[in-house]
Amino acid sequence: MKELTALDAARLIAQRQLTSESLTRACLERIEEREPAVKAWEYLDPDLAIAQARLADRSPIRGPLHGVPLAIKDVIDTVDMPTTYGSRIYRDYRPASDATCVALARAGGAVILGKTVTTEFAGGAPGKTRNPHNPRYTPGGSSSGSAAAVGCAMVPWALGTQTYGSTIRPASFCGVVGYKPSYGKAEVRGIKTLTSGLDTLGLFARTVADVALLASVVTGGRVGEVDVSSAPRIGFLNTSPWGEVADATRHLLDDCVRRLTGGGAQVRDLPSPSSMASWREIQDVVFGWEMLQALAYERVFRRNDVEPRTKQMFKEYEQRLTPKNYETGLGHAREARRECADLFHDCDVLLVPAAVGEAPEGIDHTGDGRFNGAWSMLHLPCLTLPMGRGAAGLPIGLQLVARLGNDATLLRAAAFVEACVVA
Amino acid sequence: MKELTALDAARLIAQRQLTSESLTRACLERIEEREPAVKAWEYLDPDLAIAQARLADRSPIRGPLHGVPLAIKDVIDTVDMPTTYGSRIYRDYRPASDATCVALARAGGAVILGKTVTTEFAGGAPGKTRNPHNPRYTPGGSSSGSAAAVGCAMVPWALGTQTYGSTIRPASFCGVVGYKPSYGKAEVRGIKTLTSGLDTLGLFARTVADVALLASVVTGGRVGEVDVSSAPRIGFLNTSPWGEVADATRHLLDDCVRRLTGGGAQVRDLPSPSSMASWREIQDVVFGWEMLQALAYERVFRRNDVEPRTKQMFKEYEQRLTPKNYETGLGHAREARRECADLFHDCDVLLVPAAVGEAPEGIDHTGDGRFNGAWSMLHLPCLTLPMGRGAAGLPIGLQLVARLGNDATLLRAAAFVEACVVA
Repeated sequence: MKELTALDAARLIAQRQLTSESLTRACLERIEEREPAVKAWEYLDPDLAIAQARLADRSPIRGPLHGVPLAIKDVIDTVDMPTTYGSRIYRDYRPASDATCVALARAGGAVILGKTVTTEFAGGAPGKTRNPHNPRYTPGGSSSGSAAAVGCAMVPWALGTQTYGSTIRPASFCGVVGYKPSYGKAEVRGIKTLTSGLDTLGLFARTVADVALLASVVTGGRVGEVDVSSAPRIGFLNTSPWGEVADATRHLLDDCVRRLTGGGAQVRDLPSPSSMASWREIQDVVFGWEMLQALAYERVFRRNDVEPRTKQMFKEYEQRLTPKNYETGLGHAREARRECADLFHDCDVLLVPAAVGEAPEGIDHTGDGRFNGAWSMLHLPCLTLPMGRGAAGLPIGLQLVARLGNDATLLRAAAFVEACVVA
Repeated sequence: MKELTALDAARLIAQRQLTSESLTRACLERIEEREPAVKAWEYLDPDLAIAQARLADRSPIRGPLHGVPLAIKDVIDTVDMPTTYGSRIYRDYRPASDATCVALARAGGAVILGKTVTTEFAGGAPGKTRNPHNPRYTPGGSSSGSAAAVGCAMVPWALGTQTYGSTIRPASFCGVVGYKPSYGKAEVRGIKTLTSGLDTLGLFARTVADVALLASVVTGGRVGEVDVSSAPRIGFLNTSPWGEVADATRHLLDDCVRRLTGGGAQVRDLPSPSSMASWREIQDVVFGWEMLQALAYERVFRRNDVEPRTKQMFKEYEQRLTPKNYETGLGHAREARRECADLFHDCDVLLVPAAVGEAPEGIDHTGDGRFNGAWSMLHLPCLTLPMGRGAAGLPIGLQLVARLGNDATLLRAAAFVEACVVA
């Protein structure tokens, strides 16, 4: 049962051929088996999960997620479960309401299974989670627990967030599909976002169809389910000024291009635009200033209660950034957002790396985000899906990026790519 | 002492010529005197306020607000005071942190005096507050308590919010200066915003210099204090497709134009742009959809715990709006934001009405926002200041509007206008 996609599970439950309780119990059993090694969960109350499942089994079908368990990153408020934001400051915090994404998921029938581990405030100080494919390796972050839990089939899907690469990178490291919608496409009310101008929701599942279904609910219908599509036009950004990918990533991407071309897609090499080199610096300035504002309370009044790495992050940006730097950075960001539209002149989506390579060894860091931050700064929708394994036997994902607001195009193209590459 | 501006009070305290305790006690006495009629406060703990003031008197000067009492609208989280969002759902809610604006104000030395009355969720269901100039009249809303408290000198300044006209209209009705920064200029983390794409902080004080000083702190330095300026170029939008202003407003605006011209400003009549008629509808669609998302938890799971008027608002927009309407509305909003830049081709600020006229009679509504919503949708910075009184003897404000991001220009022009019109 753990290998059911969320879409299949939802269909079976809607047809009353599967109970939510049995599916939820299967998830809990899987968690019992894998959690000692993976440590994906910040909060899990099996009784509460089963009570929700039983209620779903007794209720009319409420929506497209009816009865299917969903994991929630612990930077997202839940009214019936503690929410710590990965910080000891909020150890005992009980939100007074659900975040919008949680409320919409519940309204769509979801069983909220529990809260998954996040780095502190979705920043750089890692939690306890390990890569489900090898516990000596990082799962990536900041949505560490959501990616890891889906990566070892503890739950069919999960919600996370992304400021920099907090969805795409852990999804790639854990071998699952990760989708970061266009900035603004999904309401982030009730999420402890790290920045006001970059953060988005993040979605994790095992298939493109699953993330699309979940997206249709948590965006209030702004992104739909994927339909059958003709072969997409793909721009392959084969080099970048952001550094080199690992050999395995390079080979897997080249192999993807061959399979995609064989599958009928039109793939063309794109040169990297001249302004691309500056995009990461722009991201850094916008991120830094907005993070300092968003965490003003913790930064000013609870500075001794945050992790050393978070304190270091505060210090570094406080020393470096002025309001003027930020205004300049915002101006550059707006310009880059206009300029990047040219990338999509002849293609529907870009094919780019999701990360340098496999998850690096160790759990005291969450990996290198150099192939993520700029896309977040540009507000573009991004999706990763697994394309193979690296030298250490861990998953490596590809990344697709579409034009701002063209989430439907992204998801359609991703379904095509998935069929060519994963099958 | 109650007639001291915040700037003067801050200077005297910084020079240790006035104690924060004596100023805070003066505010509390004024509140004791006026609160039975005005009902501006949702939460006030005199002991907590005095304890903060005493601490300020014993501490080194921490920042430009040191020791000066500040009122906070009750949709803004405070870690040491309850925060109800004007809703019985949150009657007992104690936030786990300060909103960014509160944390920055405290870091700047402010004494957080208490929480002021808001309409439910800063929407259309009024609270108990009455106009300080005549308790039979509305103070306006949704920042009703903040405007009323400043309007009768209970506190030198206050924070509120604006989605539609929630700062400008109550400030105009209560005879104070109200300033809504450009969208995005001040972090709204920790505020129960009604929409993700329209809401801003709102600032109330008795002078332009005071709102500018407060803004310099709560924007993290992105807006500075006002400096001396040359006479601004003013565009007078003398007619609008949004309806007629009251006779008193018309006469006061004409009189302003005369005084401004006499003072050396260049004032020219501007025709209203042809697209202006559509701006209010665009605002309505963007507002409606985003409000439904932001209040998803309350709307879906606590629907019977909200005021009838809030429930009616949910129903109305749920019936009318689809994701497609919203996408279209967003597109129109982006277009209008581009087009409106033309208004500023030959002028620094626009002079427009802040409201139809005086506060209307009765406290079961907060007045007509027809002269507010579009500027909020356009993301432009707006400021109101008192220009006289109407037939019922209540204040009427003018409104200045500047180009997106040009908050410094707005504040400089406002200081000039204040000197011509109020003096």
